[in-house]
Formats: sequence, C-alpha cells, structure tokens
Amino acid sequence: MKKYNLGIDIGGTSIKIGLFDLEGNLLQTDSIRTNKTSKGSFILPELADYIKHKFTIEDIRGIGIGVPGPVAKNMIYSCVNLGWGEKDIVKEFKELLAIDDIIVRVANDANLAAAGEIYKGVASGYINAFMVTLGTGIGGGVIIDGRVVDGINGVAGEIGHTHIDDLFNLDCNCGKSGCLETVASATGIVRLAKEYLRKSNKPSKLRRYPEFSAKKVIDFAKAGDDLATEIIDKSMEYLARVLAKVTYIINPDIFIIGGGISNAGNFIIEKIKKYYYPLVVPFISHTNFEIATLGNEAGMFGACYLVKW
Amino acid sequence: MKKYNLGIDIGGTSIKIGLFDLEGNLLQTDSIRTNKTSKGSFILPELADYIKHKFTIEDIRGIGIGVPGPVAKNMIYSCVNLGWGEKDIVKEFKELLAIDDIIVRVANDANLAAAGEIYKGVASGYINAFMVTLGTGIGGGVIIDGRVVDGINGVAGEIGHTHIDDLFNLDCNCGKSGCLETVASATGIVRLAKEYLRKSNKPSKLRRYPEFSAKKVIDFAKAGDDLATEIIDKSMEYLARVLAKVTYIINPDIFIIGGGISNAGNFIIEKIKKYYYPLVVPFISHTNFEIATLGNEAGMFGACYLVKW
Repeated sequence: MKKYNLGIDIGGTSIKIGLFDLEGNLLQTDSIRTNKTSKGSFILPELADYIKHKFTIEDIRGIGIGVPGPVAKNMIYSCVNLGWGEKDIVKEFKELLAIDDIIVRVANDANLAAAGEIYKGVASGYINAFMVTLGTGIGGGVIIDGRVVDGINGVAGEIGHTHIDDLFNLDCNCGKSGCLETVASATGIVRLAKEYLRKSNKPSKLRRYPEFSAKKVIDFAKAGDDLATEIIDKSMEYLARVLAKVTYIINPDIFIIGGGISNAGNFIIEKIKKYYYPLVVPFISHTNFEIATLGNEAGMFGACYLVKW
Repeated sequence: MKKYNLGIDIGGTSIKIGLFDLEGNLLQTDSIRTNKTSKGSFILPELADYIKHKFTIEDIRGIGIGVPGPVAKNMIYSCVNLGWGEKDIVKEFKELLAIDDIIVRVANDANLAAAGEIYKGVASGYINAFMVTLGTGIGGGVIIDGRVVDGINGVAGEIGHTHIDDLFNLDCNCGKSGCLETVASATGIVRLAKEYLRKSNKPSKLRRYPEFSAKKVIDFAKAGDDLATEIIDKSMEYLARVLAKVTYIINPDIFIIGGGISNAGNFIIEKIKKYYYPLVVPFISHTNFEIATLGNEAGMFGACYLVKW
C-alpha cells in the first residue's frame, strides 16, 4: 500500500530527506552527509541504502529529488557541486532501490524551492511564480501553469548568471564576469560593498571592519548608514532590473524572495519595488513580492510536489 | 456538424480571418478593414456580422482571436491600437454571434504568432519556444509546454519594452526610454542609425540619404559598409543581450525570429548568435535560432491553435 512520498534535497554538504503523506504533509525529516569522494559516486548508493533501511520501500509511491545543478527532463548534464557529470539519475536510483513501481523524478533545487513555495509555502494557490533565492549564490525557479520549468539545457530560472551591464564587472564563478550573482547574492553584496569602500571616501561604520557579512551591510543600511544604504540600493537595483525583465518575459503572478538575504524581510522587498516599478508599464501597479516561508525545507517540499501526480 | 475553426487576427488596419479545418489546414483567408471609429466599438459587431454572413455558424467549432495588446485569461485590459479599454471580448463576441456552443478564446497577437509557428510553421513539433517579431515595434511570444503564456497582466513576451542600459536612451512610445524597441525594431534600427550618423564622422553610403529604411541599413551592412555594419551589430547585440536573459529565465528549445527585419535571414541570425553565445554558459553550445516561416499568417494559425482543444 502506497502511503508516502519522499522529497529529497541533495546539497553540497548534506542530503535532506523528507517523508510526506500523500497530501503533502511533512511527517519526518532526516539528514545525511553528502559523500563527495570519488566524484560523488557514493552519493546515490548511500542514499538508496539509507532509504531502504529507514523506510518500508513498498510504502513509497514516489521520490522527488533536487540537485544543485542544471537538470533537463530528469537528466543531469553536469553537477559540479556533487562531482557529477552526465547522469541518468532516475534510472540509476531505481536500479539501486531495486523496485520498479516507484515514481522517481529529478529537478534543479532552485526550481524545486519555487515549487515548494507554491505547494505549501507563501505562494500556496498560485500557479505562475518566479522565485529568486539570494544565498551564497543566486538561484531562481520558474513555475508556469503549476509546472516546474527546466528548460532545454536545464538553465531556466538561473538569473544569477544573467549579465548585468555592470560598472564593476566582477568575475563570477561561472567563468564570466558581471553576473547578477556577483553583486546581489550574499557574497555579491559583500563584494559590492568592498568596491564601494575602495572607490568612495564616504564615512561608514563598515570601515571599522576588515571583514563583514551581507547581513552586516543590511543591518547598517537599516540603521541609516549612508554608504551601506547606497550599497544595498545598488544591489537591489540590479536585482530589480532582472526581475523587470522576468516580468516582460513570463509576467508571473508572484515573485518569491528566498535565501539568507530574504531574512531582511520587508526592507529588501521595498528596495526591490523601488527600482522595479519604474521599469515596468504603469498598468502593472501591483506585483506580488513575498518573502519565502519554507526556508531550508522548500527544496524537500518541492521535490515532493514533483511526484505528487 | 462542427467542421471548422476560425483563426482571427485583429490588427490596427485590417482583420484577417482564416477558415481552418479541424486539422489546422488553412482553407480560406478573408480580410476586412478595422473600423477604429468610436473607440473601436464597431469592430466586434462588424466582425460578427461578417462571420454570420460568410460562414454557416453552426459549422464553426471554435474561434481564436488575436489582438494587438495585453490579454490575460481571455480578458483585454487595454488595447490602444484599437481604441479599446477593458473588455470581456469572449462574452461580447458570443453574444453578438448569438450562439452558445462555440469556443471563443483570445490572446495577444505576438503570443499567437509564436503559437502559429509551433503549430504549422518553422517550430512545428517544438513545445517550448520564444518568438521575437522585429517589425515596426518588437513583439514577443512565449510558449511553454505547448501553451501560450499570457502572464498575470498580459505582458509575457513583451521584451520590446525591457529596458536595456542604453547609451542612447531613446524615448519609447510606451512613455519610458531606453526600451529594446527603440534600437532593435525596424524603426529602432533607423533611429540608432541616425544617432550613429550624427555622433560619428565615419563615411557611409547612408549619408547620401536624408531618410532611409531599416532594410537599407541592413543591405548596406551586407554589402560591407562599415558604419552600417556597426549599427546592425549594435542593434543585434542589444537584442542578443535580452535573448540571453530569456535563456536564463525559460531556456526555450527554440528562438524564432519574425517580422520585417527577419527577411534579412541568416545574416541577422548570425549577428544575434555572435553576441548571444558569449553571454550564456559554455555548455549551451547550440541554441536553435530560426527565421519564422508563416509571415503575416502566423497570427491566424496561432489563433486557430488557441481553440484546437
């Protein structure tokens, strides 16, 4: 008797495993270490072993899996964070589980975070959504008509690597420069701040610290520090420019802002709106911008959503 | 007996009416004048009269309609080109036809051009496509999972009004400035050319003409005129930057290039690719860019596609 779905979020450090009932209620969460040795070749076998020992496999209806890399039509082409190259994860995982009548589907973790938020989070009830996750990097997820959009190369939603015509043109991990991620992620805000501190003579409390976090920049901006305010404004202006383009491309019902930076809440939303509205047609007088509510569990919920049908 | 669908494309000058069999073969095309007097209040009544006299209404299964303005969920919010404000066109049109068991659906004309091309044109067989129409203005259409994406405000696909961080920052019809349309549409290419002619001293055959068309700029560029080449390169660079963003948002299977400028064929495609590839991740080594094949009939085919189910 099929009673459960598993929503699994494979990250670079740990793998989160959520046990859900068929209504999508999270019953139990487990976490195991991501074993990245030997190009990540132990990840799936260890995960399969864990599942087989922990759960009665015959009770499981479907397993949704999120991975930190591009996925298209359930195929992984490359997942640097896990050491994986091209991989038919669905086939491999089914073989490891040695059970046939189980639905296994895989998608990019940022896309699944968006799916999680429309399934059980802040965007519950919406069917067209764009989520941007402002963490160490920038992830993005697209949901249209209630479905996760992968894209032909698996890069749908990856706005972190859109080139913004940047004065600073900072080098990005992706090998290019001037990507949104270099100025609007948590690390990007710090990098942008350092550029401002170097290029300007304005006083700022930030100058007291040789190293600081994005949270510190935001906190100082909230407290009225002029230079910190300029930095956050510039960073969110870059983000807003890309979100305005998202509007002119898919015009989603709701923008969901997640990741560490979103802990700044309404302060960040207002900054984004300030730069977003002047870039869109006046009849778009109201766009829903909401802070994500599922936090680190969004990926598990989204993975569960993926196998809900 | 329901034997036909109608695909109707309401333009600012004329209304094209296509009679299709249920397999989507175009059997017959008619065209009537768009009567824009009295805020376009005669458009639908005249169209309904024409249809009732021309066809046996009981034979018609569905009527798809394209309009030159934003449409969301079959509702028109404003259609400046036709003089319309908010309008429940489906309800009105069904009342005018005085028949209930007919499917009437409406969408934006640029979105329907994209639908037409995936239905019976160059993108036949694709289910995820982005089409950009480079005409007097710039239209764009998005198809995901085979469905036309309207967006909550009906602006999905409207990349003509994305702000590009433009040196020239030309005023746009939309009331803003620096929109893609001001430099990459047919009129935009001419405007950009005039800026180049004014700001540079380079010789160019274009200087012989007080007025010229975008086609002339393209023809001179094809013939090796340096300044004309610079202008077309710059224009297509702007377009490519936006298309790279489309890739990072929906990553379509195919980009379709339509409108008058697309008559330049491969010359334009190569210019776009030249600036597109450096902006996307290296593993996107091949993206399909194709010239639209349905021309002015794309809208009718797309309108028919809209009622195919």
